[in-house]
Amino acid sequence: MNVTLGSRTEPFRTVTFDAANNSVRLIEQRLLPHEFKIIGTKDFRETARAITDMIVRGAGAIGATAAYGLAQGVRAFRGGDLQKFSAHVESVYQTLAAARPTAVDPLNAMNDVRREMARGETVAEQQALALAAAEEFANEDARHCAEIGQHGAKLIRNGMKVLTHCNAGWLAFVDVGSATAPLYAAQAQGKKFHVFCDETRPRSQGATLTAWELAQQKISHQIIADNAAGHLMQRGEIDLVIVGSDRTLGRTGEVANKIGTYTKAVLAARHKIPFYVAIPLSTIDWNLKRGFDIPIEERHESEVLGAWGVIDHSKLKIKNSKPNQRAYVRVANPTSGARNPGFDVTPAELITGIITPVGIFKPKELWKQRHQLGGLVQ
Amino acid sequence: MNVTLGSRTEPFRTVTFDAANNSVRLIEQRLLPHEFKIIGTKDFRETARAITDMIVRGAGAIGATAAYGLAQGVRAFRGGDLQKFSAHVESVYQTLAAARPTAVDPLNAMNDVRREMARGETVAEQQALALAAAEEFANEDARHCAEIGQHGAKLIRNGMKVLTHCNAGWLAFVDVGSATAPLYAAQAQGKKFHVFCDETRPRSQGATLTAWELAQQKISHQIIADNAAGHLMQRGEIDLVIVGSDRTLGRTGEVANKIGTYTKAVLAARHKIPFYVAIPLSTIDWNLKRGFDIPIEERHESEVLGAWGVIDHSKLKIKNSKPNQRAYVRVANPTSGARNPGFDVTPAELITGIITPVGIFKPKELWKQRHQLGGLVQ
Repeated sequence: MNVTLGSRTEPFRTVTFDAANNSVRLIEQRLLPHEFKIIGTKDFRETARAITDMIVRGAGAIGATAAYGLAQGVRAFRGGDLQKFSAHVESVYQTLAAARPTAVDPLNAMNDVRREMARGETVAEQQALALAAAEEFANEDARHCAEIGQHGAKLIRNGMKVLTHCNAGWLAFVDVGSATAPLYAAQAQGKKFHVFCDETRPRSQGATLTAWELAQQKISHQIIADNAAGHLMQRGEIDLVIVGSDRTLGRTGEVANKIGTYTKAVLAARHKIPFYVAIPLSTIDWNLKRGFDIPIEERHESEVLGAWGVIDHSKLKIKNSKPNQRAYVRVANPTSGARNPGFDVTPAELITGIITPVGIFKPKELWKQRHQLGGLVQ
Repeated sequence: MNVTLGSRTEPFRTVTFDAANNSVRLIEQRLLPHEFKIIGTKDFRETARAITDMIVRGAGAIGATAAYGLAQGVRAFRGGDLQKFSAHVESVYQTLAAARPTAVDPLNAMNDVRREMARGETVAEQQALALAAAEEFANEDARHCAEIGQHGAKLIRNGMKVLTHCNAGWLAFVDVGSATAPLYAAQAQGKKFHVFCDETRPRSQGATLTAWELAQQKISHQIIADNAAGHLMQRGEIDLVIVGSDRTLGRTGEVANKIGTYTKAVLAARHKIPFYVAIPLSTIDWNLKRGFDIPIEERHESEVLGAWGVIDHSKLKIKNSKPNQRAYVRVANPTSGARNPGFDVTPAELITGIITPVGIFKPKELWKQRHQLGGLVQ
């Protein structure tokens, strides 16, 4: 998507590959929204570290980063000994697989790359196939998101006010995003609408990443406290909700997504506001039988007890501190602890539709349509 | 309530009067939860400024502060000329009334004081009556909160998990608080329970003030992001919700309170969790005919776009910065704006009961019981 740097506006992807320097190029997402910077990793170990350290985050984006990282590691091998090469590939794979151990996308992406590589006979052939497969993985991720956008854009009419939660934007994928894809497609069709971004405490991805994305694309938007959505719905100020999903159960239509998603779905149902979930097909879990069994990660309490940001000297001058100084401020009472569930599960009955690259489905229809949706049931 | 300072634990009220020095003594609430400090105002102008600058906040607390401030100003008058005295009283009243122009509590409190003063014939008599009336106002506020506690404590059983929103605690009143009163009374009865404090973005009064109060009283509690309550309810981890109210409509049972209250009520209704609102009788508006007409204050967007706190150097060392340095950090994308409604309105159908100093009522019963509830209908 477009990013404006000074007076120039340029298209960027979250993850790309610099073949000449054998380097994975990433948007340094930890600096957003206060600074835009592209970094290049010098080897696959640095790429793995970029995933671990959350320079890059989001299902599609870390999938593509792992695919490129595997190609990067594979291409660094010197010589033609197939046995040594095979051991090297395995070691690169394991390093990248360990970078974010609970995520499934890096594994799926790297398995794709290895399957393609197997078609080559020499080391050089396999190296070339690895890069081609990684590029194809990234292109496919971007294409699927664009298809989500084409289907989802039909839901957006002129003058609508749309609520989003967290960031399921292009920064979480290679490009375009899932929950944001319908917004970008509708904008390209010339539609005018307004977006409310839930700030999405405790990590504030709505206020930081989604708001930054929408500002870059010049889409009219405002940030709201997570507490405000109910009031705005009550006053008729929200017409449509679109969110992403970390895992969608193909058998039940339940959706696991960032904490607070369930609350917005309950509110939307009360106010008869359509509530849509936008997902790439890779997000569908065809095996799990009930949402209650999805493990909900309990994250560190410091996320709830404070906030990261940039010190604003216009509010309170702090001597000797640099401009744009990042800081973590402790907001909460220092002798109190916190509970911090990272995700919640929204039942199918609260979801109007699931927007996928192949069309929009009722959540309960996913299972019936599993062949069209690429369901591989074990 | 009790505050522990070093090794000593002492009872404090939010607002008291130091007659020897003719000074209103206040907890400097802007420093909480990071520092506990009592300040004394040197004259009624400084007392008015303390209300304006939010050194003291909360309906009951600013009512008592204005009452004491009026007595303070009245007592500073020298001489016996009743006509000059009367002009002076009027000027003190107007200064304090202008300190927080939209609040109704300072006016009600000062009107009480003036009514009592009118019984005196000399300046000296009126000065003495003013102080006695201000003391009585403060004592009555504390007594009413204690009565809310006695009624509300019946709802709390051993082992319960109770959710609160924002701060309707003793810091918002003279003592005990409204939504917190049942917790303190239940604790005094030896009951064991756990409290979840919504952090209550954007101003975080739950994470700062309520959590500080509960920690001082040694009540088991944890702070949660506002997004987390729905998930906890879904998993059966919340048994009861108690919140306060800025204005309760006597005719309809609707409750205006801090933004996000409505959302918690919607969630509680879905999960069949009892949702109670604790209020002193002065909060009831007997005139307004529908909640939709309650003006909802739109507050400054900087509250949503960032956060106030104390810089935590264990997360990121900032050179030359003092320990316990307060700072406002900008969290959100710097080119995005925000909507910031300060309050919302919860309909009667979502409220299990209203806890008052004279008993617990169904919201729809308030009007029928208006004589018992002191309803003065114009």
